[in-house]
Amino acid sequence: KMLGRVLCTVLFVGAFPSRADASQGHISVVLLGATGDLAKKYLWQGLFQLYLDQVSSGHSFTFHGAALTALEPGQRLMFDVLKKLSCPPDEAPDRCAVLKDQFLKLSQYHQLKTAENYTALHREIETLLRQEGLREAGRIFYFSVPPFAYTEIARHINSSCRPPAGAWLRVVLEKPFGHDLASAQQLAAELAGFFREEEMYRVDHYLGKQAVAHILPFRDQNRQFLDPIWNQHHVERVEVVLKETVDAKGRTSFYEQYGVIRDVLQNHLTEALMFLVMELPANVSSAQEVLQHKLQAFQSLWGLERSSAVLGQYQAYDSQVQEELQEARGYVSTTPTFAGVLIRSDSLRWDGVPFLLTSGKALDERVGYARVLFKNRAYCTQSGTLRDAGHSQCKPKQIIFYFGHGALNTPAVLVSRNLFQPVMPKDSWKEAEARSDLHIFGQPLSDFYMYSPVKERDAYSVLISNIYHGRKDFFITTENLLASWAFWTPLLDSTSRQPPRLYPGGVENQHLLDFELVSGGVAFSVAEPAELLNPGRQMPSDFRAIQSKFRQSPLVSAWAEDLVSQLASDMEEAAVRSVARSGQFHLALSGGSSPVVLFQRLARHHYGFPWKHTHVWLVDERCVPLTDSESNFLSLHRHLLQRVRVPYFNIHPMPVHLNRRLCVEEDGGTELYTQDIAALVANASFDLVLLGVGTDGHTASLFPRSESGLEGAPTVVLTESPVKPHQRMSLSLPLINRARQVFVLVLGKGKHDITTLLSRVGHEPRKWPISGVSPSSGQLVWYVDYEALLG
Amino acid sequence: KMLGRVLCTVLFVGAFPSRADASQGHISVVLLGATGDLAKKYLWQGLFQLYLDQVSSGHSFTFHGAALTALEPGQRLMFDVLKKLSCPPDEAPDRCAVLKDQFLKLSQYHQLKTAENYTALHREIETLLRQEGLREAGRIFYFSVPPFAYTEIARHINSSCRPPAGAWLRVVLEKPFGHDLASAQQLAAELAGFFREEEMYRVDHYLGKQAVAHILPFRDQNRQFLDPIWNQHHVERVEVVLKETVDAKGRTSFYEQYGVIRDVLQNHLTEALMFLVMELPANVSSAQEVLQHKLQAFQSLWGLERSSAVLGQYQAYDSQVQEELQEARGYVSTTPTFAGVLIRSDSLRWDGVPFLLTSGKALDERVGYARVLFKNRAYCTQSGTLRDAGHSQCKPKQIIFYFGHGALNTPAVLVSRNLFQPVMPKDSWKEAEARSDLHIFGQPLSDFYMYSPVKERDAYSVLISNIYHGRKDFFITTENLLASWAFWTPLLDSTSRQPPRLYPGGVENQHLLDFELVSGGVAFSVAEPAELLNPGRQMPSDFRAIQSKFRQSPLVSAWAEDLVSQLASDMEEAAVRSVARSGQFHLALSGGSSPVVLFQRLARHHYGFPWKHTHVWLVDERCVPLTDSESNFLSLHRHLLQRVRVPYFNIHPMPVHLNRRLCVEEDGGTELYTQDIAALVANASFDLVLLGVGTDGHTASLFPRSESGLEGAPTVVLTESPVKPHQRMSLSLPLINRARQVFVLVLGKGKHDITTLLSRVGHEPRKWPISGVSPSSGQLVWYVDYEALLG
Repeated sequence: KMLGRVLCTVLFVGAFPSRADASQGHISVVLLGATGDLAKKYLWQGLFQLYLDQVSSGHSFTFHGAALTALEPGQRLMFDVLKKLSCPPDEAPDRCAVLKDQFLKLSQYHQLKTAENYTALHREIETLLRQEGLREAGRIFYFSVPPFAYTEIARHINSSCRPPAGAWLRVVLEKPFGHDLASAQQLAAELAGFFREEEMYRVDHYLGKQAVAHILPFRDQNRQFLDPIWNQHHVERVEVVLKETVDAKGRTSFYEQYGVIRDVLQNHLTEALMFLVMELPANVSSAQEVLQHKLQAFQSLWGLERSSAVLGQYQAYDSQVQEELQEARGYVSTTPTFAGVLIRSDSLRWDGVPFLLTSGKALDERVGYARVLFKNRAYCTQSGTLRDAGHSQCKPKQIIFYFGHGALNTPAVLVSRNLFQPVMPKDSWKEAEARSDLHIFGQPLSDFYMYSPVKERDAYSVLISNIYHGRKDFFITTENLLASWAFWTPLLDSTSRQPPRLYPGGVENQHLLDFELVSGGVAFSVAEPAELLNPGRQMPSDFRAIQSKFRQSPLVSAWAEDLVSQLASDMEEAAVRSVARSGQFHLALSGGSSPVVLFQRLARHHYGFPWKHTHVWLVDERCVPLTDSESNFLSLHRHLLQRVRVPYFNIHPMPVHLNRRLCVEEDGGTELYTQDIAALVANASFDLVLLGVGTDGHTASLFPRSESGLEGAPTVVLTESPVKPHQRMSLSLPLINRARQVFVLVLGKGKHDITTLLSRVGHEPRKWPISGVSPSSGQLVWYVDYEALLG
Repeated sequence: KMLGRVLCTVLFVGAFPSRADASQGHISVVLLGATGDLAKKYLWQGLFQLYLDQVSSGHSFTFHGAALTALEPGQRLMFDVLKKLSCPPDEAPDRCAVLKDQFLKLSQYHQLKTAENYTALHREIETLLRQEGLREAGRIFYFSVPPFAYTEIARHINSSCRPPAGAWLRVVLEKPFGHDLASAQQLAAELAGFFREEEMYRVDHYLGKQAVAHILPFRDQNRQFLDPIWNQHHVERVEVVLKETVDAKGRTSFYEQYGVIRDVLQNHLTEALMFLVMELPANVSSAQEVLQHKLQAFQSLWGLERSSAVLGQYQAYDSQVQEELQEARGYVSTTPTFAGVLIRSDSLRWDGVPFLLTSGKALDERVGYARVLFKNRAYCTQSGTLRDAGHSQCKPKQIIFYFGHGALNTPAVLVSRNLFQPVMPKDSWKEAEARSDLHIFGQPLSDFYMYSPVKERDAYSVLISNIYHGRKDFFITTENLLASWAFWTPLLDSTSRQPPRLYPGGVENQHLLDFELVSGGVAFSVAEPAELLNPGRQMPSDFRAIQSKFRQSPLVSAWAEDLVSQLASDMEEAAVRSVARSGQFHLALSGGSSPVVLFQRLARHHYGFPWKHTHVWLVDERCVPLTDSESNFLSLHRHLLQRVRVPYFNIHPMPVHLNRRLCVEEDGGTELYTQDIAALVANASFDLVLLGVGTDGHTASLFPRSESGLEGAPTVVLTESPVKPHQRMSLSLPLINRARQVFVLVLGKGKHDITTLLSRVGHEPRKWPISGVSPSSGQLVWYVDYEALLG
């Protein structure tokens, strides 16, 4: 009843929407968790701002606060919040006062607990609209509740609160959206049972920060300047940073489960980075184009490894956790409160450019920024003093999207004056006065063109406005979310056991958290000072490669990542030795999944590998076209060959596809490959053959009880696999055994049984073809990881 | 007779070599040009130093000054020089005085003008040795004479002055060694008629500068630190710089012929650069290994283009030339007195690292250095002020070989303290005191480990000592010299018509000579200020591409380099358009020499080319194996494919080599290629076909009066070339004419006649196959350079 009265009032006050103005229809906003912290601090203010901005838009509004609290105390709590809403400084006080009054009248509290509560809310909205003769435009449900409540609420909305056909539903979700890829997938699947993708607005409030939200428009409006320089040839590095001075005190129950990567890097910093990294869509206002380009950018990123990150934890954290979570005194947390992560992209644009994401608590300052640092491509002919005069091309060049806080204490966009004067939209960004006393990254502010927002707006106001406008590019789609988790989860997994470096906090950190690029990853710059070591922590000394014997041959064993890096180094050494001896290196590589990490490691870490003099052969191949996703060669090409400079002539895919058909005997593919080997490889003796082992003891494509390839002449043979695709081509065991060196790589728990079995059996190639690998005059080395070896 | 007496004296003074001590034999040093400037300033002093150092070596010496001047005045002139020889500060004055006296007595003047003079000298040496009962160890002839005199003197030495078998001959030559590749080859060939390679010691006095000479030993002794960082991943750039404050006044007769590139860059700076760039030999004391690695480094350098350099000339130069060379008042010289040159290497180690060579006269300071600047690979977590404390990893990191002069005023080796503490030989380099007032490249000296020589030694003393020791790695071999000229000559040719930027000189230059890397080349950073323009100079406005018609099709014409860059841009545009339309770009490329510059340009300047989606086909191929140096594919591979990321599967060499034989009809190569095209290229219509034209009017491998390929079905055909190798495979004219676009590239004077003819004839493919190119529904564009078009 109250709503009816309120609407009437609104409709008859001259300055405000008449019935005709409300022709765009009515919007109901339901804020779930209406009396929680986030709602108090930002959301109601954001909704009020929306009302101020859109009161004349032709839409009419009602605002429904909801919580589990009973009606009366809930009403009281909520209106206490609403009364404190402030008028923005750029708003005329009179108008604002009137509108605040209207806003209060349009707002109502509901207890939303049971299915009946939701049905009642739905009826109330329907009744109101019917009474007022209003068409319904849509409903916004803002979930400001803990994630465990999501499914229940979503079910109720879906079954009881959907608007009628023709009106839209928008549900707004707050993070966390899962804890890793699997949990995010589960949550996404549950939500997908209730809402269509276009109905969901997942909030990352960084996308509402003015400096972040302006990255794409900036790139768009400054294409003329950026097109030539926005690439690996000009950009030295990209930094996305959020430093905090506060620690996790009071929030450890949340923090201990999440840590800095899930809290900040996986979402906020990644999103800001993506705006910098993605290819610029032709139309940056098209949410669809933006989202599509962002997803492509995720696809271009290198997978994260343990060495991609340095992790820290401020020293007081453990005792805070012990106190707040009532853990035992000896409790040791490995949750990182600081992370520095190196991200790289595969794209031609960004090849070789390091993207550094950094965030931490208990640091020396509070500041957030995304910074693109350009290479110095100038030579300044004058000596030192003259060189720095004016806007010399030898001064640093950078573009900074300054999120806020820090020395500037305002969102800002800064562009070095020796770079270009940017185009900025005059209605929303103004040139800021250069305060001569301020320096940023060691340069005086006068070295920059600096812009700050005409109106500083809170991120939530920006986002609520974008929900209203249906701008989905300001939100995280399911695909986007899962792409981000898919990217971060391997790092979370591989570092979960790793003790972070302890740091004292604040300026005391000195250079302790400085880190640097080290052979494909990052590492702290200074060694850990002894006094900071916690003697209770286990140091990762067990990660070192151990050497022993397996089946009478040398065995190298370690955790998978270390094992692969050892193998890659040994392969490089073999290659260098071989090229020194004969000018060439003939390398035969196996297919399968295990070698993929090896290929990646070789491509990314072994710059000294003599690829130019290496011939790459296949150990085995599936009878599919080379461009088929099942092809061993395709995998080899993707993960290794396209990244290194092996001459075209030195690449020898198996000829499984001749005369437009696959592995037909009369096409003579096996003879052809045998001949190629005979023509190029001295004595048909490969310098190095890399093999794997199947759980059935197969190696290459030589399967137990194989009809061919286990004995006889050193040739190439066609074989049958028990699994699809059945037809295979393979080097024969006698040909493999002519090699100078054979390395066998065995990775993962799944190989533990066959590894144990092989450690006990003799030479029985008909049962286990791998047992027949025994180079007649060469060397055999086993590379078996701890999981395969020890289970 | 005098010599005999002197020797006797020497042999009887106790402290000096006895007959037994002289067991290593006698060395005769002949200094030709004994009274010239260089001899006065450096060479006699160097010879005296040699005597001081080697008097007890077991060798005995005589020194023969020679010139064209008659005996008596010559003797007087020479002994005036000798009397002024100074004792080095580290030498005991008594010993030095005695030895100076000896040195004077061992030195004698000769007039060397005629063949008889040389014969007389030879006899004199023989006589002396016989009289004194000395074995001859060797003879050094030091040519300190103008290069035009070389051949004559060389002939005389060779025919009259060679030492007997068992003794060595070393002839020492001073630059200039030619003016470009052709003249250097000619001079080298002439000298080779008189001397064996190992007898020639070509001086580049930079190789005797202590800081330059220590580059290789430094790299060798600090392998442990440098091995991981001496590569593209860590080095940001390398600068080799020689700045002078003096101008060319008084030397313009020499300078006007040479200019700064020939005077300084081709020799001194290149040699210093090579020490930095070359792969480090296992044994840096092996002259042979050093020279071999240096040659390999030359091979790895990208060819220089006009855009590789910026050139300047100080404003007073023209009037100095007019005055000194008595040129007319309007005379305009294009000789550069300043050059900044960008050099790049192809090697995996240095890929992408810019090497900047810079030298000039009339600059703001006198200084020379080679500087390796490392990338900042660190992220420093602290804010600005804290970041710079101590030896932060975020401070610049560099290694500087300081040749001398400048702020330090001494040769020095400097290594940033945040890099490593270098190993330096304690007997020859000492740690220098850090003068706190001095800065170098914006950093206080205290940021560096700094070393200076224990004894500062003049370059000529070092070199004369190395001649004595037969250390050929301190000298320029013929191969080395020709490699350097081969490298520099194309730049000299392509810039010879280019007016250099005028600069006022000294500090007035401001930022006028600053330059920067711009799309594969360098360009001045600031636009030419109007007031400096000399209105008498012709601006290169005629270098712009012009557009017109040729044979009823669009014509683009320009000087070759601009034409090729226009063509490359047009190709990229076509590729981008095609990929946007169909997701792919099918490009068919011709062989021959003209496309090579195009391929290089595409590889080096077109980072936006969608290679990933490009299929590369061959227009024609010679029936040779793909790895044969005659193969079109090999050339394409070398200059383009190995430098860009075209997926393996998208590369389609013509199948000229099947079943281990070449272009045998029954192997079905033409059918195979036709089928591949049919399978992959929609409608067998290539997106772009690039053609050339032969002087006989052939195109692709379709020759006049060809039996096949001129009409009929759109297929691939075997053809016969009038020149070797005769057998060819080619796309047929009908297949070419199905293309969406055909670009024809015609370069060089040699194509002028056929171009003229083609402009007049109609469609006569049997006479001139190129005249049959007429895409049925596509576009034909001619790219013809001025030389082909205008002759």
